[in-house]
Amino acid sequence: MAKIITFGEIMLRLAPQGYLRFFQNDVLEATFGGGEANVAVSLANFGLDVAFVTKLPKNDIGQAAVNQLRYFGVDTAKITRGGERVGIYYLEKGASQRASKVIYDRAYSAISMAKSEDFNWDEIFSGVEWFHFTGITPALGQNVADICLEACKKAKEKGITISCDLNFRKNLWSSEQAGKTMGTLMPYVDVCIANEEDAEKVFGIKASDTDISGGKLSHEGYKTVAKELKDRFGFKYVAITLRGSISASDNNWAAMLYDGSEYHFSKNYAVHIVDRVGGGDSFGAGLIYGLVSNMGACDTLEFAVAASCLKHSIEGDFNRVSVSEVKSLMDGDGSGRVQR
Amino acid sequence: MAKIITFGEIMLRLAPQGYLRFFQNDVLEATFGGGEANVAVSLANFGLDVAFVTKLPKNDIGQAAVNQLRYFGVDTAKITRGGERVGIYYLEKGASQRASKVIYDRAYSAISMAKSEDFNWDEIFSGVEWFHFTGITPALGQNVADICLEACKKAKEKGITISCDLNFRKNLWSSEQAGKTMGTLMPYVDVCIANEEDAEKVFGIKASDTDISGGKLSHEGYKTVAKELKDRFGFKYVAITLRGSISASDNNWAAMLYDGSEYHFSKNYAVHIVDRVGGGDSFGAGLIYGLVSNMGACDTLEFAVAASCLKHSIEGDFNRVSVSEVKSLMDGDGSGRVQR
Amino acid sequence: MAKIITFGEIMLRLAPQGYLRFFQNDVLEATFGGGEANVAVSLANFGLDVAFVTKLPKNDIGQAAVNQLRYFGVDTAKITRGGERVGIYYLEKGASQRASKVIYDRAYSAISMAKSEDFNWDEIFSGVEWFHFTGITPALGQNVADICLEACKKAKEKGITISCDLNFRKNLWSSEQAGKTMGTLMPYVDVCIANEEDAEKVFGIKASDTDISGGKLSHEGYKTVAKELKDRFGFKYVAITLRGSISASDNNWAAMLYDGSEYHFSKNYAVHIVDRVGGGDSFGAGLIYGLVSNMGACDTLEFAVAASCLKHSIEGDFNRVSVSEVKSLMDGDGSGRVQR
Amino acid sequence: MAKIITFGEIMLRLAPQGYLRFFQNDVLEATFGGGEANVAVSLANFGLDVAFVTKLPKNDIGQAAVNQLRYFGVDTAKITRGGERVGIYYLEKGASQRASKVIYDRAYSAISMAKSEDFNWDEIFSGVEWFHFTGITPALGQNVADICLEACKKAKEKGITISCDLNFRKNLWSSEQAGKTMGTLMPYVDVCIANEEDAEKVFGIKASDTDISGGKLSHEGYKTVAKELKDRFGFKYVAITLRGSISASDNNWAAMLYDGSEYHFSKNYAVHIVDRVGGGDSFGAGLIYGLVSNMGACDTLEFAVAASCLKHSIEGDFNRVSVSEVKSLMDGDGSGRVQR
Amino acid sequence: MAKIITFGEIMLRLAPQGYLRFFQNDVLEATFGGGEANVAVSLANFGLDVAFVTKLPKNDIGQAAVNQLRYFGVDTAKITRGGERVGIYYLEKGASQRASKVIYDRAYSAISMAKSEDFNWDEIFSGVEWFHFTGITPALGQNVADICLEACKKAKEKGITISCDLNFRKNLWSSEQAGKTMGTLMPYVDVCIANEEDAEKVFGIKASDTDISGGKLSHEGYKTVAKELKDRFGFKYVAITLRGSISASDNNWAAMLYDGSEYHFSKNYAVHIVDRVGGGDSFGAGLIYGLVSNMGACDTLEFAVAASCLKHSIEGDFNRVSVSEVKSLMDGDGSGRVQR
Amino acid sequence: MAKIITFGEIMLRLAPQGYLRFFQNDVLEATFGGGEANVAVSLANFGLDVAFVTKLPKNDIGQAAVNQLRYFGVDTAKITRGGERVGIYYLEKGASQRASKVIYDRAYSAISMAKSEDFNWDEIFSGVEWFHFTGITPALGQNVADICLEACKKAKEKGITISCDLNFRKNLWSSEQAGKTMGTLMPYVDVCIANEEDAEKVFGIKASDTDISGGKLSHEGYKTVAKELKDRFGFKYVAITLRGSISASDNNWAAMLYDGSEYHFSKNYAVHIVDRVGGGDSFGAGLIYGLVSNMGACDTLEFAVAASCLKHSIEGDFNRVSVSEVKSLMDGDGSGRVQR
Repeated sequence: MAKIITFGEIMLRLAPQGYLRFFQNDVLEATFGGGEANVAVSLANFGLDVAFVTKLPKNDIGQAAVNQLRYFGVDTAKITRGGERVGIYYLEKGASQRASKVIYDRAYSAISMAKSEDFNWDEIFSGVEWFHFTGITPALGQNVADICLEACKKAKEKGITISCDLNFRKNLWSSEQAGKTMGTLMPYVDVCIANEEDAEKVFGIKASDTDISGGKLSHEGYKTVAKELKDRFGFKYVAITLRGSISASDNNWAAMLYDGSEYHFSKNYAVHIVDRVGGGDSFGAGLIYGLVSNMGACDTLEFAVAASCLKHSIEGDFNRVSVSEVKSLMDGDGSGRVQR
Repeated sequence: MAKIITFGEIMLRLAPQGYLRFFQNDVLEATFGGGEANVAVSLANFGLDVAFVTKLPKNDIGQAAVNQLRYFGVDTAKITRGGERVGIYYLEKGASQRASKVIYDRAYSAISMAKSEDFNWDEIFSGVEWFHFTGITPALGQNVADICLEACKKAKEKGITISCDLNFRKNLWSSEQAGKTMGTLMPYVDVCIANEEDAEKVFGIKASDTDISGGKLSHEGYKTVAKELKDRFGFKYVAITLRGSISASDNNWAAMLYDGSEYHFSKNYAVHIVDRVGGGDSFGAGLIYGLVSNMGACDTLEFAVAASCLKHSIEGDFNRVSVSEVKSLMDGDGSGRVQR
Repeated sequence: MAKIITFGEIMLRLAPQGYLRFFQNDVLEATFGGGEANVAVSLANFGLDVAFVTKLPKNDIGQAAVNQLRYFGVDTAKITRGGERVGIYYLEKGASQRASKVIYDRAYSAISMAKSEDFNWDEIFSGVEWFHFTGITPALGQNVADICLEACKKAKEKGITISCDLNFRKNLWSSEQAGKTMGTLMPYVDVCIANEEDAEKVFGIKASDTDISGGKLSHEGYKTVAKELKDRFGFKYVAITLRGSISASDNNWAAMLYDGSEYHFSKNYAVHIVDRVGGGDSFGAGLIYGLVSNMGACDTLEFAVAASCLKHSIEGDFNRVSVSEVKSLMDGDGSGRVQR
Repeated sequence: MAKIITFGEIMLRLAPQGYLRFFQNDVLEATFGGGEANVAVSLANFGLDVAFVTKLPKNDIGQAAVNQLRYFGVDTAKITRGGERVGIYYLEKGASQRASKVIYDRAYSAISMAKSEDFNWDEIFSGVEWFHFTGITPALGQNVADICLEACKKAKEKGITISCDLNFRKNLWSSEQAGKTMGTLMPYVDVCIANEEDAEKVFGIKASDTDISGGKLSHEGYKTVAKELKDRFGFKYVAITLRGSISASDNNWAAMLYDGSEYHFSKNYAVHIVDRVGGGDSFGAGLIYGLVSNMGACDTLEFAVAASCLKHSIEGDFNRVSVSEVKSLMDGDGSGRVQR
Repeated sequence: MAKIITFGEIMLRLAPQGYLRFFQNDVLEATFGGGEANVAVSLANFGLDVAFVTKLPKNDIGQAAVNQLRYFGVDTAKITRGGERVGIYYLEKGASQRASKVIYDRAYSAISMAKSEDFNWDEIFSGVEWFHFTGITPALGQNVADICLEACKKAKEKGITISCDLNFRKNLWSSEQAGKTMGTLMPYVDVCIANEEDAEKVFGIKASDTDISGGKLSHEGYKTVAKELKDRFGFKYVAITLRGSISASDNNWAAMLYDGSEYHFSKNYAVHIVDRVGGGDSFGAGLIYGLVSNMGACDTLEFAVAASCLKHSIEGDFNRVSVSEVKSLMDGDGSGRVQR
Repeated sequence: MAKIITFGEIMLRLAPQGYLRFFQNDVLEATFGGGEANVAVSLANFGLDVAFVTKLPKNDIGQAAVNQLRYFGVDTAKITRGGERVGIYYLEKGASQRASKVIYDRAYSAISMAKSEDFNWDEIFSGVEWFHFTGITPALGQNVADICLEACKKAKEKGITISCDLNFRKNLWSSEQAGKTMGTLMPYVDVCIANEEDAEKVFGIKASDTDISGGKLSHEGYKTVAKELKDRFGFKYVAITLRGSISASDNNWAAMLYDGSEYHFSKNYAVHIVDRVGGGDSFGAGLIYGLVSNMGACDTLEFAVAASCLKHSIEGDFNRVSVSEVKSLMDGDGSGRVQR
């Protein structure tokens, strides 16, 4: 089994209950999540040995984040404690034609204010085989982008496989900033994960013949995107998730994996959404699990898509599913029959 | 910006949580709503200057209704305080083949027992441009119907535009009573709003070739209904909402607007329902907003339908959406993609 | 009106709220249910005079189960009090591709440890016209299977009609055990109810040309199953529910009834699921109601299917619907329009 | 054991959660209660055979009230179904110096509009030994007062013991009205129950040397009140509860029973209040239980006070305690030690 | 009646339910509060015409804060919209020996980053009679302290009465900083409000013979504090609240008012605490109400103490009580008897 | 810092919300707890390195128990997975004169059915300094008592300090059984913890002059109990908690520690109870912390009492407090003043 590190921010997620609008009543569901933490939890649920690296304040909110990660068996010993606040994101769940809404209150969080000396990557990477981060982490600030670069260099030096989910967030930085910063990190990355918009938003690589808001997906277009990403940065694998948004309640969900020679397209799932936040992260975790477990490209892709398909049926950022549950769906049982 | 008055009843809405049947557990969601109050709140959310007129008792329940309206910025200064009780409606939300169920406990409410002298329409209408009421208000009793008539006369005298949503309620009066009373009020009305059943139930005007329970909508049939309504009462605008009920969970939703010369049909929305109560009211508010804002008939219709489409995704009677949210849907983004 | 007895286990049902996974938060919805109790409650809601027979401990949990049954007007006077524990089942509601999950903690329950002398069937059956049990009851243990046999013999002796829902549960016994035990009970049974899998799992009678997980239903296949069941055991009626599982959120639902001469197939309902547990039991109750009320085979079937269609929209094991609500759906109003 | 009838109103009780003020959030706890229903439930919990008589509408709210009573084993077969509405009372729980607040919305309820022909007392009283009502019932209207009088006459005729809790409610009638109406009913009553204010408010009989708001209780004063009540109306027993209100959170609770010869004073309980509504009713039920069970005056009083002491620790109107729990407290174990 | 302005910060208050520790479950109660907003709401509940001045971002969280204030009738038209975030405070309610805990996450809030040009005091103070702020406002930053000073100068210029609650917060600034900044503002202040610690913490003025943690209060000590405050800054009134902390569940609560000639000591209340946050603010509001209403020093003090006594029984920061409720307690009815 | 092992059962704790009686509504709070698990969590919260040893089934309920322990940082790697069920205890919280009520449904749990080979004590105790169990563990069955004895022998062999809380449970075994079994284990124990009843119930050692239900505590009596325990079994320390039960809402709480030479009596705390379950366990954990940290007998005792005093203010079995919070109370700040 592999030892895996993910690095990024874990935030307090504050969401009204059910389909209520923000502050429609006076209760907020308070859970934790964030791209890289979500991947860590998912991998822990798959039984892998994974540690999450971040910076969290020494108060009860920071401790609650640590405890949540420990709950799933994620190693939290490498988390730096200090700083002022835990970042927050407010989430309002959409339904039908009404989109979900995210309001970030993550500026000045401990990790976004972190300094190079907060992390000793040589120690952190001791005995590690895989390092994962997403485009959100460097978007937190130039200081964090610099830390990412240090981590990538050290990981490469140690022969650690590096995966990165582009995860473009328009509220954190512009396409121009993203392209420039991500461009310096990509050369270290082995496995690149993107959704149907990221490649264009970050690197200006556009899938031809694809109308995202209309939910039409062109296989050919995605192939050219994957190829161009690989050609530009030398990735071993390029994985792209293909979300067909029918409405906030119903999506189609599939993905492709380009292994440098072949383009694998997964089966498509028509998902009735419970909570789609973290869907991409659960795909990334499935992909890492498949690759680490040497499942082969095709099965890896199907595992990753099935894992993330299930995520859409689960409340919260974290994908609370086991390997056997994913394999059961991957093997074709999506009928939802009660097991008893 | 226009100063608008809506007049009617605001009730305490008592609903079991989620899809529970009445009293399946011992908690009721207690919010407020009612046709004309819903229109007022919606208009306030659109940024218009609107006041709601009614009568509410001087107790904590009446005050809570006032406070809820103030929360949205609705002017409550013209509400008469007095009387014995706040009307109640019990709502059980349906799902799939099980219809939603409403039990009225609104008899003897303060507004239903109101007297002519409770309202000084001359003062209420000072500086006002638009007056809106629905067929529910006169259905509360002959006394309230009389007050409606006084209000209409005074409004007309002052050159105020009057809109009315027919809103037939079989539990409040018979078709015969409705037809007679509404017939005396309609001559004062400029903008008539109806759903696919109202015209028939109130005035016996039937859409040809239309099977409502089967969800089939005939454009031609609705044209003849609108034309006949206009011809009979001299309305400037006739708007008809077209609900295609697939089940309690899924509806088609569209509308038409007849401006005296052209019949405009809106796009159709396939809505996955969160809460459909107040759907018609949110359409009426959208229509008023569009007309007051001089959007033109076509855009007014699309704005009203988009606004009410969104209402179906929102819990409670009130349509908690902004103009920009409505316009975004109206401009085509119904994919429900997360905004972050 | 008929006096009816159902016999089996009522359990504490512990379920996370909404679509949460087990223990995702620290609250469990605690209600009661179980195949035969569900039938009893449904019949009581239909206005019939019904008693539920079981054994429950003399503690607050046993009493709560009794109280719940009394709430619906089920006669609980024939319940034996004693034993150690109330059986529990943990239920996690599925959504989309994620199936619902049941964990049984019902071993050592009072009824599963019951002895022959706990029930005086002669007294219990005094004045009774109908006796119902399901395949779950004898699966609780040989002791309970023996009690079932005693009950069947006594019922037959008294000319009471006996119905049995095969209700195979793989977590309680093997197909082999089930086939052997059920084989000794079936000769006493007049009305046999099964779902699309039971006949095969219990008696090895397989519907030809049917792919259950794919949701394809072959009418011809079901006819042969019903015929073979009748031929083997001499049932007067064989009813089979036909569930087409699209996902945990959406199912098709229909049934057939074989009255020894004709095969009646009901209309099909596309159900958007709120809670499907107890769906089969609600069908059984509908069937008993129809037969007891002499509705005729065709109406009985449509009544039973409509009743169980509605059950899928109701939280909890119990089918909280009235005869008039079922008849309204049976007569074609499945549009879910609000009644007010 | 005796067959007992209580007669009065059962209302929907709507209360904010915990110590919230009215409508401080949008949830109301929806339970049922009312003086005479509370007595019935309490007696059923004591294992007695008791029926509640009232009139309730044939809708889901009326049915929920019936179901709640059945839950406890109260016989509901004698309830007349009809009328328009279930009465409501809004309850806001007080704390510390802030008093609990009750808003009645009970006018026009089915029972308050009932007619003489709604109740066949001859049939209702068949086989009955005890009849209980309170001063609230005749306060609902002259029609209900008349029905009470009919019931009392018929009960007397049949040799049934009659108990009445004076239960003065200033929001229902004036002292003058109460005195007049109650004066006509009292001659039929055998057991009179009152709190420290009732005798004065209804009959102008004032306890000397007693400052109620200050919580000072004078034994001598109460003796004279009891004696005067007995002398005036010929009661066999007069019971008076003695509440010492320290605050909305803490009360002293005791009672006296005058059996025509001796004045028995109970022990005093210092109660930390969970919910004091229904405290008097639980005393009445305890008193009836003691008298019916021939406990003797002294034990009857202690049983009644202990039962009502426990009620103060229980949410809702109903006293959910068993005879053994009451006896345990009565026998001195008020230390609240965990039993495990 | 007077027109009143309060100026400061309104925060999102995030609190676990009941007595749970932070993040003990995954729900937070999300309400709004803050010293000066609390005073504004309290005054609005007393029927006064009051506006709250602050800066709030143009997002759904800022809007929710505005809506909450409007709910109570507070004028929000003078609030500047802009900036990045709404400040947050996390509150864990204590019990018995466990103290309540506050974690501030209010840095970088819109008001704390506000600039002088955000507020046009000349306009804001048009027609105003009273201006209130607390020591928290200038503690938000030198920029806000400067704005306070501008406001004070303008208010003085216009002859507006100024009140200030010292409200020292050790997590916002040091005693040294507080003393220096507050020292420049105090000369403009007419009415100074403090708790038993503030005078010492801010100005080094210590009550002799007083052991706060032990809950012992020396009247003489407080007199000297009040006198010294008046002598140093020329206040017209000095009010000091006297909290005797027995535990987190039980406090004694009283106050004194020095009007420059006499020292008035209020009655003492033994309060069983529901929520003590905002207790001081509710006292301040009561004091302002009394002075504005010309109640006289003695009644003003008793009104303010009674108002704040009631606040301790109410959940949330806001004091949801009316003038009549305060007067009822002030006039001696603290027995908590149910009103019905 | 020491490495500590606790051994016993962790159960699912099902409790109605607030002060509701069992099944008064349909929600149960579902948390985990049990004597030895509570001690482990408390020690982890104090920052010690602690592992909990038990047997838990390989299902979602067993996993949830593991996850809960991991949440607090308790090492769960030594837990054996297998068996059929997680034990349950139903808890109804008492108030005022109504005692809390526990119903055990723990028979047949995985740990109660465990076998000797399920635990390799040689491995478990590797590097361990302290071993803790309670009298509940051997009470689960002779098999578990035997495992306890093996553990004790192995621990002694390895020079590990052993502590035992007598924790008599009358629902698990008789005094006679307890005395016999515990008598064989005590010779291995170094630190004996008991409450005011245990010594008598288990070993027949009675505190003279003590009336437990009356809440009277005699220092002399406890001294003789401690001395006799030490003399009989050779304990190094005997600690006895002294609970004075005023009611289910209010207790006095103190303890004594006998170190073989001196009898130390702690200060007494008057606690207003939030949740008293686990109070004894939190004392045991405090005692172990003090002894492991070499605090000295007096401070150890005061730390243990302060820790368990705080536990009474915390919901759930687990004592969620830090060392600094305990020391703050121990140092005298029990006034409950808000910290901000």
